[in-house]
Amino acid sequence: MLARYAQYGGIEAGGTKFVCAIGDASLSLLERIEFPTTTPAETIGRAIEFFRSRAGNDGLTALGIGSFGPVDPRPGSPTWGYITTTPKEGWQHTDFAGSLRRALDVPVGFDTDTNAAALGEGALGAAKGLHTFAYLTIGTGIGGGALVGGVRIHGLLHPEMGHMRLPRAEGDKFEGVCPFHGDCFEGMASGPALRARAGGPPDRLPADHQIWTNMVHYLSAALVNIACVLSPQRIILGGGVMHQRHLFPRIRRRVQHLLADYLQSPEIVNHPETFIVPPGLGDDAGVIGALALARHAAGGDIDQE
Amino acid sequence: MLARYAQYGGIEAGGTKFVCAIGDASLSLLERIEFPTTTPAETIGRAIEFFRSRAGNDGLTALGIGSFGPVDPRPGSPTWGYITTTPKEGWQHTDFAGSLRRALDVPVGFDTDTNAAALGEGALGAAKGLHTFAYLTIGTGIGGGALVGGVRIHGLLHPEMGHMRLPRAEGDKFEGVCPFHGDCFEGMASGPALRARAGGPPDRLPADHQIWTNMVHYLSAALVNIACVLSPQRIILGGGVMHQRHLFPRIRRRVQHLLADYLQSPEIVNHPETFIVPPGLGDDAGVIGALALARHAAGGDIDQE
Repeated sequence: MLARYAQYGGIEAGGTKFVCAIGDASLSLLERIEFPTTTPAETIGRAIEFFRSRAGNDGLTALGIGSFGPVDPRPGSPTWGYITTTPKEGWQHTDFAGSLRRALDVPVGFDTDTNAAALGEGALGAAKGLHTFAYLTIGTGIGGGALVGGVRIHGLLHPEMGHMRLPRAEGDKFEGVCPFHGDCFEGMASGPALRARAGGPPDRLPADHQIWTNMVHYLSAALVNIACVLSPQRIILGGGVMHQRHLFPRIRRRVQHLLADYLQSPEIVNHPETFIVPPGLGDDAGVIGALALARHAAGGDIDQE
Repeated sequence: MLARYAQYGGIEAGGTKFVCAIGDASLSLLERIEFPTTTPAETIGRAIEFFRSRAGNDGLTALGIGSFGPVDPRPGSPTWGYITTTPKEGWQHTDFAGSLRRALDVPVGFDTDTNAAALGEGALGAAKGLHTFAYLTIGTGIGGGALVGGVRIHGLLHPEMGHMRLPRAEGDKFEGVCPFHGDCFEGMASGPALRARAGGPPDRLPADHQIWTNMVHYLSAALVNIACVLSPQRIILGGGVMHQRHLFPRIRRRVQHLLADYLQSPEIVNHPETFIVPPGLGDDAGVIGALALARHAAGGDIDQE
């Protein structure tokens, strides 16, 4: 049973900024704050201060965290709740969830930022009512989360969809920006890759520029591969790069073409605009998903069906 | 409750042959028969005859089918249990599971051949005790099945892992044999692709031949992509091509290399031989998985945990 007036805390922890929020049992946002990600001590300290000062007399019922990574989300692991081998300086091997659990003394739910965003979109956004779908964010990095039959993907660790290997676009000589793999998906199509291709902010590029054609190539190939492995009912595409809305119809057409006549589901053949969609919650998907993680940690239900 | 002496029927339906078996509640094979896949009427007729004649006085408790595809495995769909848009002549839009349910009057469980094989490996084989893993078969076609948190992947339809798009191996000019997509994973690395590359049976190629190097390239890229999307605890590689056991150590080394230092789980870094493995049930994974589907259809439990 959930308390009637349960109050949940949520943290969407990104490499650039933290979003902290307090929400109710329906995941409505009651309070929300953003601040930059600096050192772990300072940043986690600010989050603790926010929840202590704003959660009222009864305090939080539970806390949920959706974090940049890689993280260890495996319950029972000695490093559960840690950010592990991240390239983000100072954050390697940080006991993130444990620090908050000790400071606030509440149950803590913990997952990747993208699994949290997928949860948020499933609870209140563009994947409401679906049981199997993926959420992909194309921004500073590329990450993916997914629910399969209502269950978040964990397994060995968590998805790392940004590090898939994709065929090169014809004639594309760009070497890629991923420090680990060079020309993986993230290396070829993240925000920094786009900026490096454009030699600056890409906003002024005309919509028919070859750079966009290449971006459509990689994004479509990645979506085809996700569709082939996960068979999602829908794929949500978020993140800063996807603010370029002209990419959506082009990606839909190309995914249709690449799947040819093989996956003959009406969703792909006749309604690609319902198969590949922007987030329903915009930039709040992650923090609402974090609230859903908190609700789950308190014993409430998060998942679809 | 399961009957004490439940008797399950299982069909592994391949494009070349059918394997039918009768098993007990522990999924031990009591009877087993194989025959070639000809027309639907003749082939399904032989299966019905086998189960009618061999299931004894009490008949079957339930039947499970793992089928070549594409199929419709969605419960409640008007075409549930159908083989749909298969290239296999005469089998398009065949009401496979429905025909058997009407003839035998028992509950029928139905899924893809590879989801069934994944189930079999999870119940008794190389994935026993794991909750999130993939089973990939590299044979006449390339197909994949998976369990995520103990749940088989369905979603929009079912996985089609053979149709992922992968980067080309350097200098590889082979155009691919997939009738739908040319140079998708199946087009480049299935049994027929291997045979076309070799200009005949590949068995006599020396282990250091460039063709094997190319095969290792595509298989490893596919495994990396599956790892990035699904985060499986293990990937099982079966099918005729993988009888070439010399491929296993090379694929393991290359997957380690491609994941670089990014996915730092001990399973991949220190024990790749436990991450990428051959099937534990050999060629019986599919039919044992079909028996597990039958047990599930009868109300018994199939999934891990």
